[in-house]
Amino acid sequence: MFSDRLAEVQHAVQSALDDAVARLPAGELREAIGYAAQGGKRLRAFLVIESAALFDIPAAQAMPAAAAVEALHAYSLVHDDLPCMDDDDLRRGLPTVHVKWDEATAVLAGDALQTLAFELCCDPALGPADRRVALVAALARASGAAGMVHGQALDIAAETAATPLNLAQITELQAGKTGALISFAAEAGAILAGADRAPLARYAAALGLAFQIADDILDIEGSEAAAGKRLGKDAGAGKATFVSLLGLEGARARAHALVAEAETALAPYGARAQTLIEAARYVIARDK
Amino acid sequence: MFSDRLAEVQHAVQSALDDAVARLPAGELREAIGYAAQGGKRLRAFLVIESAALFDIPAAQAMPAAAAVEALHAYSLVHDDLPCMDDDDLRRGLPTVHVKWDEATAVLAGDALQTLAFELCCDPALGPADRRVALVAALARASGAAGMVHGQALDIAAETAATPLNLAQITELQAGKTGALISFAAEAGAILAGADRAPLARYAAALGLAFQIADDILDIEGSEAAAGKRLGKDAGAGKATFVSLLGLEGARARAHALVAEAETALAPYGARAQTLIEAARYVIARDK
Repeated sequence: MFSDRLAEVQHAVQSALDDAVARLPAGELREAIGYAAQGGKRLRAFLVIESAALFDIPAAQAMPAAAAVEALHAYSLVHDDLPCMDDDDLRRGLPTVHVKWDEATAVLAGDALQTLAFELCCDPALGPADRRVALVAALARASGAAGMVHGQALDIAAETAATPLNLAQITELQAGKTGALISFAAEAGAILAGADRAPLARYAAALGLAFQIADDILDIEGSEAAAGKRLGKDAGAGKATFVSLLGLEGARARAHALVAEAETALAPYGARAQTLIEAARYVIARDK
Repeated sequence: MFSDRLAEVQHAVQSALDDAVARLPAGELREAIGYAAQGGKRLRAFLVIESAALFDIPAAQAMPAAAAVEALHAYSLVHDDLPCMDDDDLRRGLPTVHVKWDEATAVLAGDALQTLAFELCCDPALGPADRRVALVAALARASGAAGMVHGQALDIAAETAATPLNLAQITELQAGKTGALISFAAEAGAILAGADRAPLARYAAALGLAFQIADDILDIEGSEAAAGKRLGKDAGAGKATFVSLLGLEGARARAHALVAEAETALAPYGARAQTLIEAARYVIARDK
């Protein structure tokens, strides 16, 4: 069942991250890194493990890649929460790193988590060297100035823009900010198997957009206690979101259509893709 | 001649970085990344190219690794200059990124430069996949929470410590903050060649420490115009440096002894190592 498998991945990826952090020199920086690497839905790790399973790659073999994408995601949250960025004081139900320590520690912990992500992609357990290099290259493209950081820069520019973004602009922003890393995670199995990435890329493009629409709906309708972060910030700031552009019902309908698209993309894998289909349904039904 | 070869590397690595930046999406973020990736001594790039030359690896083949170490170094400077870190307004003779743009842009540009460094290490031109994975892994270890970022965290902790650091502590700090990346650069040639890294590791350990001692001497005696950054900050802040611990003459003598050690370490390579020997001499004779 989906929720059991998700819980298994959550547990296993936390162990992998804890092991990696335990190998670092002791001190405040290591504490902050370990703190930032805790919790979360672990959706990205789950996509790595389940896409790998499509190609009969065992979870234990794919785990360093799952830990890598979560380390990368954790770095992006720590930096995104900084006062000069989104200025958030709550994340995953806990004070953000710069609140619990200070800004310098948050900058360095984020930096080190990014580095750790690339180190984890080199783990020999993942398989032949050519697959590991492909993984590093794909993670770099997804997370750098042509991917996630591009989306973050567009997001910051939008805050001071004279007019709210339109649908095409917000779609480009989100394709970078959340979509690129979700796509990397879903394609990781194919990369590790040396297989065609196209079906998983189509699945992930639809899934990533559905994820962001669901986030915008949560920002309006969700519970801060469940989400573990401040909500209503985007709407309050007058920023364009999928809800402000499509309306609440329009956004919901679009999210459902995207989940159907994601399912269709997995047709080549037949029944083996059942868990990834359930993951897509989860993405628009979650409360955090 | 050493200075001609250094100038050649400076030119070639700038082209490689400019090409990489030109492939990113246009916008303010790309401008800031390109700005931060300009200038500098390019000592780390030079060490990559010259250590590769020891093993008959042409400069053009090793260039992506040289560009990678400079992108990594540039990221560390952009983040180190942030107000919450060293709070510097001048770098390489120009306003720092957060002064020219803003803090958010500096955080993101630094983040993207780190990512770019790992992407560059995947360039197929560098050779077989196993060597490229080894390069990524070595760069990650050198720059992460067990290397460069460890040194930066110790440096920040030292600023609020009750007593100045002693010689062992300042040596550990510098081995991380500047030493680890210099070691990576000097060992890169052996990594790309699949050769024994030990002689270059010994060379780099001595060179890195000599480099930092020379930096501490420059902080006292140097010209801001030549250095292109603020000087006298460490001494002014009452922070322990090699000069405060060893005295100016003691520091100079130690730097010379380390350069001799660096030369000895290169004995296995005979006359082929002449340029790397000259690089070690340059490190303690430079004015920036």
